[in-house]
Amino acid sequence: MKIRERGLIIGQYPTGKHNCLTDVPGVKVGHITLHKKISEEEHACTGVTAILPHEGNLFLEKVVAASYVINGFGKTTGLVQLDELGLLESPIMLSNTFAVPAVTHGTIEYMLKNNREIGDTTGTINIVTGECNDGYLNSIRELPIKPEHAIEAIENAVHTPCEEGAVGAGKGMVCFGYKGGIGTSSRIVADNNQRSYHLGCLVLSNFGGKVEFPFDKYMGSSVKDKDVKETPDGSIMIILGTDIPLTDRQLKRIAKRCGIGLGRTGSNYSHGSGDIVIAFSNGLKIPHHYKEDFSQQTVIRENHPIMNEIFSAAAEVTEEAILNSLSQAETTTGRKGRTVYSLFS
Amino acid sequence: MKIRERGLIIGQYPTGKHNCLTDVPGVKVGHITLHKKISEEEHACTGVTAILPHEGNLFLEKVVAASYVINGFGKTTGLVQLDELGLLESPIMLSNTFAVPAVTHGTIEYMLKNNREIGDTTGTINIVTGECNDGYLNSIRELPIKPEHAIEAIENAVHTPCEEGAVGAGKGMVCFGYKGGIGTSSRIVADNNQRSYHLGCLVLSNFGGKVEFPFDKYMGSSVKDKDVKETPDGSIMIILGTDIPLTDRQLKRIAKRCGIGLGRTGSNYSHGSGDIVIAFSNGLKIPHHYKEDFSQQTVIRENHPIMNEIFSAAAEVTEEAILNSLSQAETTTGRKGRTVYSLFS
Amino acid sequence: MKIRERGLIIGQYPTGKHNCLTDVPGVKVGHITLHKKISEEEHACTGVTAILPHEGNLFLEKVVAASYVINGFGKTTGLVQLDELGLLESPIMLSNTFAVPAVTHGTIEYMLKNNREIGDTTGTINIVTGECNDGYLNSIRELPIKPEHAIEAIENAVHTPCEEGAVGAGKGMVCFGYKGGIGTSSRIVADNNQRSYHLGCLVLSNFGGKVEFPFDKYMGSSVKDKDVKETPDGSIMIILGTDIPLTDRQLKRIAKRCGIGLGRTGSNYSHGSGDIVIAFSNGLKIPHHYKEDFSQQTVIRENHPIMNEIFSAAAEVTEEAILNSLSQAETTTGRKGRTVYSLFS
Amino acid sequence: MKIRERGLIIGQYPTGKHNCLTDVPGVKVGHITLHKKISEEEHACTGVTAILPHEGNLFLEKVVAASYVINGFGKTTGLVQLDELGLLESPIMLSNTFAVPAVTHGTIEYMLKNNREIGDTTGTINIVTGECNDGYLNSIRELPIKPEHAIEAIENAVHTPCEEGAVGAGKGMVCFGYKGGIGTSSRIVADNNQRSYHLGCLVLSNFGGKVEFPFDKYMGSSVKDKDVKETPDGSIMIILGTDIPLTDRQLKRIAKRCGIGLGRTGSNYSHGSGDIVIAFSNGLKIPHHYKEDFSQQTVIRENHPIMNEIFSAAAEVTEEAILNSLSQAETTTGRKGRTVYSLFS
Repeated sequence: MKIRERGLIIGQYPTGKHNCLTDVPGVKVGHITLHKKISEEEHACTGVTAILPHEGNLFLEKVVAASYVINGFGKTTGLVQLDELGLLESPIMLSNTFAVPAVTHGTIEYMLKNNREIGDTTGTINIVTGECNDGYLNSIRELPIKPEHAIEAIENAVHTPCEEGAVGAGKGMVCFGYKGGIGTSSRIVADNNQRSYHLGCLVLSNFGGKVEFPFDKYMGSSVKDKDVKETPDGSIMIILGTDIPLTDRQLKRIAKRCGIGLGRTGSNYSHGSGDIVIAFSNGLKIPHHYKEDFSQQTVIRENHPIMNEIFSAAAEVTEEAILNSLSQAETTTGRKGRTVYSLFS
Repeated sequence: MKIRERGLIIGQYPTGKHNCLTDVPGVKVGHITLHKKISEEEHACTGVTAILPHEGNLFLEKVVAASYVINGFGKTTGLVQLDELGLLESPIMLSNTFAVPAVTHGTIEYMLKNNREIGDTTGTINIVTGECNDGYLNSIRELPIKPEHAIEAIENAVHTPCEEGAVGAGKGMVCFGYKGGIGTSSRIVADNNQRSYHLGCLVLSNFGGKVEFPFDKYMGSSVKDKDVKETPDGSIMIILGTDIPLTDRQLKRIAKRCGIGLGRTGSNYSHGSGDIVIAFSNGLKIPHHYKEDFSQQTVIRENHPIMNEIFSAAAEVTEEAILNSLSQAETTTGRKGRTVYSLFS
Repeated sequence: MKIRERGLIIGQYPTGKHNCLTDVPGVKVGHITLHKKISEEEHACTGVTAILPHEGNLFLEKVVAASYVINGFGKTTGLVQLDELGLLESPIMLSNTFAVPAVTHGTIEYMLKNNREIGDTTGTINIVTGECNDGYLNSIRELPIKPEHAIEAIENAVHTPCEEGAVGAGKGMVCFGYKGGIGTSSRIVADNNQRSYHLGCLVLSNFGGKVEFPFDKYMGSSVKDKDVKETPDGSIMIILGTDIPLTDRQLKRIAKRCGIGLGRTGSNYSHGSGDIVIAFSNGLKIPHHYKEDFSQQTVIRENHPIMNEIFSAAAEVTEEAILNSLSQAETTTGRKGRTVYSLFS
Repeated sequence: MKIRERGLIIGQYPTGKHNCLTDVPGVKVGHITLHKKISEEEHACTGVTAILPHEGNLFLEKVVAASYVINGFGKTTGLVQLDELGLLESPIMLSNTFAVPAVTHGTIEYMLKNNREIGDTTGTINIVTGECNDGYLNSIRELPIKPEHAIEAIENAVHTPCEEGAVGAGKGMVCFGYKGGIGTSSRIVADNNQRSYHLGCLVLSNFGGKVEFPFDKYMGSSVKDKDVKETPDGSIMIILGTDIPLTDRQLKRIAKRCGIGLGRTGSNYSHGSGDIVIAFSNGLKIPHHYKEDFSQQTVIRENHPIMNEIFSAAAEVTEEAILNSLSQAETTTGRKGRTVYSLFS
């Protein structure tokens, strides 16, 4: 159940049709989830989530992108090139910390298979993979994620509202001492001609100590305390997607506002967290091949009203995506028999 | 009256003795306030505020410093060198947007007078001056601030709890449609040997639309609506001071958390805002002259518990300083007869 | 005499008509020079240089801009906003270190006079002022530059090839122990339709120890050693202008390549230097006022050949501008009777 | 043969004993090289190089580190955390572009095996892996590098002068149209007590078009032109190691100067290049576990003379390491029967 169905409304802007990142036209999300015993003590309780910025060939039609590192105690890969060029040319992949190489490797294989020219007649490709540490429930030292899981997650990607909670990369994640994981939300913003655009957010939530969560603000007295173990510092990956035509600089400014939403849920961006925003716009696609040195582009005029609307929407869609990750996640048992409870169980 | 005296407690850490930036040992704050009619329409409703990181010669004994630009639609000066060297060698000066050159000029004159060697036998000096646009109440086009006002503000600086609200650089500032300006707060954090340190914050608040302020969260139903005009995008200067021995990188990480506190008051870092944090630590002073190429320094070990405490304290001390700026500011009339009301009038 | 007239050709791209920043259509440069005794010992040996990115109203028609801080021991002002928005809305002003406030103040006065709405019915304005320390020849402690000098420099700006060497802000500057100051150069680059664009550079050179200058590379054995005093660490301001339609991110990438040209002249970006690049393109003007939230823009496609040509041109035009500053500067006597010789005297 | 043995001296500072990165006490370098036919057309012509900052447990005793992205068209991983914390806790691994995941995976396995607590009772580990595209000689689409090659490279690491040229990650690299690859050099700098320190550099050179190389400057007329194919934009990884006690901010400043040396060899940091510097100092080791929140550290005083010496040394050691990569690399034949010639063959 989404948090709105529990009666909690975050912010002022209307949501998209399904209150999901996939409300942004063209965006697809896919999961693969692992949940099995490896041995008496060890448990694969993890997965992979793939976000596809549009339906076409992502290498041949790149999208404008930006990243913002809220706190950099994390192992996200691919940001150097994304920042230099302001472009994304691969799916955005999410998984656990030690799975980043396997997931990146699998995604390279997938992209190579679908683009014969990469690494042969044209250059290489930059893969963006983010992560959180699900080591409380998942036996990360066992490295259960293999390259093929990345390919499966990509192939599972669909336009329909994506599953949330303890699914995909979110399977083993813990947020404020409760079960976290995948959460998503969306907003609609309009320009001054009343043309509508979408702004969507998908998070992988794995942060926060129980004492930081503002129960009063969100929950009233309706939540009963569980015997939740304190988990160490955790992280969050925040993926922001939109169809508003934006430059990479504008996207970076917007990505920064996701930190506001994160802060409003109680996070103080802990020392040991990899709190990272990756933002893209498929409102303008950049071809890999072209003849002309110059092109015509539609870009937003960076005036006060519309930028402020987008900024507010970015903050509130992030806050709601985090709450959805908590609202949708079910109680999960993993490594060493540990159980993390749903906030709403 | 401070916001605590109105019954509102922000965060979990204890405040310093006076809940003021000057609780950090050695730190001094001084104001000079201008409030006079210039003509029928025009009004000087502005001032200068000076923050002195310690009591000695600031050029000869520099302090570790860092800045963090939350949103850069602002004219703060001096950050290029502060960022390169991680050092502050002047007072931090605050005033209105067009007063930055006059204030910087006056501060140079002050520092030159007190340091005969600057620009003669040794190098130059870097002045840090921040600003917000008080043009709603103050006739900024009239350029009422002169270099001597900067010198007066420095000379007025004292260790005692500083005045807040519509004073100094805060005289003409507007926050959430109500009277803002200077606000300050402090926190005490302890290391694992129970040695106590102070973290103080002073803000110049001039941001926020009325619709953004979370009345319910802070005020209950106790505040009656005034006929407050919507003001355009505004800014905030956030000065964070501490005696914890920190490197400039650590200070920048801490400065970033001030944005959490700002976001919790309702700000979405608006497009037209210059939201800028300047952080310093006087826990380690760096001499201008020395003989040895190497020195011994005490530095914090960047482990989880103490950094997380400082991060949380930075977020909450910023939030409370902003609320104090609102709580302490009195209704003020300025340019064109415009009145901005106290939130609590 | 330009360095080319001495037989030294830098790089491979053709120069513009006058080998000057003003070869970029619309760009104007103006100087005001001060050279007079103040007292027995003290001497005003300084000035102001103004670079106007185009001929129109710079506030109402902004240009795309970026900065790159090679080494940040400097006091350049205005970069925070320039970086946030990727825009320049004022002349770029150059002077000595302690003149930054006076020059900025004068430029504010000039812009306010020519734009009644600034600070009244619209927002404020961001002035960009750079500096080097000319304290060896100029009595900077005497603060000889006044706000009106800035206005004069702006009003002196012309499209004709600008004066170089010991003129304007370059009057008192020292480079590699020889007389430096203002130098300029330009390049022509063509797109794949053979449409030509200009890339121009103007430097304020005040850096380098005599031992760093590669006499062999540039001079053969033709230069006789003068008894040049070693000067302390110095700085360089590098202004890059172009009419190629570029985004601010692309401009920042190009600005970075100016550091290559600087390094090739022998600089190792010394510790005490403020080596700062400010780059702008007037190939796309951004209006202050507009109705529509979106607009059509022509932008460069960031492919290999044309970006690499621009990168190479940026490196070589910077190197040649520095050499022109040396080639054009005449022997100058200033403060305390000190004389700095022309490299070619 | 090193370039010095060919009579070319770069810069003014003395080299270490072996003119190698391993002159820095404690530093070890290891290679694994692959050179075998895969099929008629395809060829594994690649490898892995590992740089170990010291001889102990790199996770338990971290070293201060910084990165500087000269141009970011590259896939280096691990920089987000390295930049946030200013620490390196793994070997620095180098290989080809598509081998980054395999190498990172193998390095994780190595570190997990040697540290039972990682991912169990303590947090995770951040691996730093850099790359260049050796696709002209190596069949990168075949993904010939496996995780075990990374482990072998680490286990091969020794203190003795490392092999250079077409070895390890350098096996398939091309520089200025000639055979490039691994090159290394070192410098000795002294503090004002005449205590000596080492600064070493190791590069993986894979950049530059033939027209950019300054034959006159380096070679006189001694090099005969080969029928060298023009290669597309390439990259360089620059690893800088030292035993000078430095902070991460100081290291980043020094890393920036490596770009000077790169520019002096003729590079203009091409659009398609991943030109990335990773710098570390083992002069101060940071333990993973500790009890006290504060510690005493020896740090350099950032005064002019010693910083300028280090800056100059960083520029010249990089330039010489690049020339050594050319001087040491032998003519190599790889994919599709392509041959790249030694500059000195």
